[in-house]
Amino acid sequence: MNAPTHPIEQLQIALPDLDWVTDTNRIARLSQDFSWFSPVLKRQLTGKTADCAVRPRNEDEIKRLVSLCARLRVPITIRGTGTGNYGQSVPLQGGVVLDMSGFNQFLWARNGAGRAQAGMRLSEFEKEARNEIGMELRCMPSTYRSATLGGLFGGGFGGVGSINYGPLGARGNVLGVKAITIEEEPKIVELRGPEALMMHHMWGTNGLVLELELALAPAVPWQEHLVVFDSFDDALEFGNAVALAPGIVKREVAFFAAPVPDYLKQLAEHLRPGCHAVLLAIAPESEPAMLELSAQWRGWVSYSKSAEEIARTNRTLLEYTWNHTTLVAFKTDKTITYLQSAFIAGQHLEQVRRMEKLLAPEVQMHCEFIRNMDGLVTCTALQIVKFTTEERLQEIMQIHRDNGVRINDPHVFVVEDGKAGGLLPPASHQIKRRFDPLNLLNPGKVRAWTDGVPD
Amino acid sequence: MNAPTHPIEQLQIALPDLDWVTDTNRIARLSQDFSWFSPVLKRQLTGKTADCAVRPRNEDEIKRLVSLCARLRVPITIRGTGTGNYGQSVPLQGGVVLDMSGFNQFLWARNGAGRAQAGMRLSEFEKEARNEIGMELRCMPSTYRSATLGGLFGGGFGGVGSINYGPLGARGNVLGVKAITIEEEPKIVELRGPEALMMHHMWGTNGLVLELELALAPAVPWQEHLVVFDSFDDALEFGNAVALAPGIVKREVAFFAAPVPDYLKQLAEHLRPGCHAVLLAIAPESEPAMLELSAQWRGWVSYSKSAEEIARTNRTLLEYTWNHTTLVAFKTDKTITYLQSAFIAGQHLEQVRRMEKLLAPEVQMHCEFIRNMDGLVTCTALQIVKFTTEERLQEIMQIHRDNGVRINDPHVFVVEDGKAGGLLPPASHQIKRRFDPLNLLNPGKVRAWTDGVPD
Repeated sequence: MNAPTHPIEQLQIALPDLDWVTDTNRIARLSQDFSWFSPVLKRQLTGKTADCAVRPRNEDEIKRLVSLCARLRVPITIRGTGTGNYGQSVPLQGGVVLDMSGFNQFLWARNGAGRAQAGMRLSEFEKEARNEIGMELRCMPSTYRSATLGGLFGGGFGGVGSINYGPLGARGNVLGVKAITIEEEPKIVELRGPEALMMHHMWGTNGLVLELELALAPAVPWQEHLVVFDSFDDALEFGNAVALAPGIVKREVAFFAAPVPDYLKQLAEHLRPGCHAVLLAIAPESEPAMLELSAQWRGWVSYSKSAEEIARTNRTLLEYTWNHTTLVAFKTDKTITYLQSAFIAGQHLEQVRRMEKLLAPEVQMHCEFIRNMDGLVTCTALQIVKFTTEERLQEIMQIHRDNGVRINDPHVFVVEDGKAGGLLPPASHQIKRRFDPLNLLNPGKVRAWTDGVPD
Repeated sequence: MNAPTHPIEQLQIALPDLDWVTDTNRIARLSQDFSWFSPVLKRQLTGKTADCAVRPRNEDEIKRLVSLCARLRVPITIRGTGTGNYGQSVPLQGGVVLDMSGFNQFLWARNGAGRAQAGMRLSEFEKEARNEIGMELRCMPSTYRSATLGGLFGGGFGGVGSINYGPLGARGNVLGVKAITIEEEPKIVELRGPEALMMHHMWGTNGLVLELELALAPAVPWQEHLVVFDSFDDALEFGNAVALAPGIVKREVAFFAAPVPDYLKQLAEHLRPGCHAVLLAIAPESEPAMLELSAQWRGWVSYSKSAEEIARTNRTLLEYTWNHTTLVAFKTDKTITYLQSAFIAGQHLEQVRRMEKLLAPEVQMHCEFIRNMDGLVTCTALQIVKFTTEERLQEIMQIHRDNGVRINDPHVFVVEDGKAGGLLPPASHQIKRRFDPLNLLNPGKVRAWTDGVPD
């Protein structure tokens, strides 16, 4: 009689036809994401790795895998391409990393919606949707080129396009998901509308999403601009005016206060040192109206590219927005980190000015204009922070809170401590009870489940 | 030597190849519009007719006509198909009515914009834009089937679609116009952007528009719904929720308080007597989210038609919205009239409730949700009024003003007294000085010019 094998070995022996990753370097890489943006998470998550990784190719492989993981009580950490920032791809208690990026078939597009397997890259999904029905994603992160549908749903907010459609979680953007329960006899279930959203932004901890169905937007041949300003206020007001103008069709409005544009080395020829800048993606018919506003706010349009030029060169300003701005800044300065904050619609300009006054240049303003969940135009910010100590970082976040600015803390790895802001709603626990009753999905990420099943 | 002929005869003798209308009944009809919605305008404008009418077919005919009118000092009243409500097609001092509806060629559609001659019907324009580049009008009145581009620009506000793009006058919706000066040697001039807008909603008094270039919207296969409610507040809140929801794509959100739905006899089978109702045009992918909100506000969806059914039957709910609601109500009750009012964004629900409380059932609430010029969601209203006396009508409007509700008085025929709300800006007079220096465009409509050229 042989010595009892480790559960991971048992998995690999029982399911030899799966695409296992056994190289330890690759396993280590597949156990990471972009949580290194946070020095706090970097410290806390260093060395956390899976015991193995697997790349399922179809539903049957996923079903057999989760069934056996449930029987053997092996933790599962779901990941797409690892562009997340909250450590959602980092397994806290080892086990198996489920790399979904090979589960990536486009299923259909019709009636204003599209559906695909969770591991499909957003850029590929959009290409298919454009080809099939002339539509595009309603909102997407700046990482759309590599990020997956499932990753956006599991850990994302929205991004480019949220100026029109609000966050991904706004009613009507996600139509449905198909998910599988982590049980010895896994069940495959379709969740629609609000029920599907119970799995949104839970970092893959309360269900394994197999397919996503998203409402789409009419495809527009977006053109891109940089508008440069001498004055912080002029740039901010211009961005806000473009964001609000109902007759200006846009997909992206970002405001970079000095010195943020100085980090964007690849765009240096279009950005005077020390300038403030607004980055835009707008419809071609909206260019004259944008130019009127730019003149009104003393802006100078330093960069303009048509959709055709963007497609030909495969070079887009969208990859300088949202957390790509932070990523690019890291190339110049390894000591930075960032914040995530949400301003109150209607008071947002005033709040942005106040925080700039209180905290510049230690905190460098980068705003993204969006419609919020309630449909009101406001801005959110991904400020760059000159990092000194974790204490000072906490202090900076507290100063924001004290001034009525909401902080969605990106320096925590427990779901409750992030955007959820404390406790998860009972409905979220109900979904986890239904889809992950054994708490095998990256245990440790949901505090309420760490010491057993919550009531 | 012959007796000197009347200027009108001289016109007709000098330009015999033009399509003159000489039948007095037809001239009388071409001297009218829908200003009979107002008992005040009906009284004031009765009997005002042109001396003749003409239907130009090309620019050369228009040029020769206005040149001679300028030489002979013959007043010109421009009209489209006469769907306006402010008497803009009623000549106050006789002269010639210029029926532009035969000057109706589509010119082009590209880069998110379309251009046509001013007399083209909106429905025809939209058909061409859809065929050529898959786009549609950003906003249009409920009379789009018969109304012309030039009429919308000259006397319209926006309408269906303004929930997305705001009023037609919002920056970026009108890209340019080509206009002709009313002079012995007429000049043809292209005006772009804000300069073009100086001729907007001036009822054809400060320039003769030949061509219009409009920014367009991606065409959507809109579906239509009626949602019925027991409670005024539930219906109003539902309409507002749909209007605001960033993930629900819509083109039209109208709220009819009881007893307004009772007027809509052709829809009676879908409208319980005494109900409140919300009329919607939404994108197909937004139906589930709309149904969620409808359930939340205790609504009952009584009517649903797909874009395909609407196209096949040629029957659309859009022809029950905006001032079509009023028109339909007239069929039941000849004694009504209406108001036009604008509520303050953010306070709009509260204002609507307050006015309902103060003035129902004498004033019957019909709201249209829109984005305003500043991009904020609010509603405007075209209330139905049980008319008694002109004094009471004035009183009702004053009660609105006293409660902070803006009245765009539809019971006046002088431009200054309508939406302009008092005085026209100097830039408007400059445009008139440039395009109609002799004040021949329906003289009497602009008070500032009635006693000579203003400073």
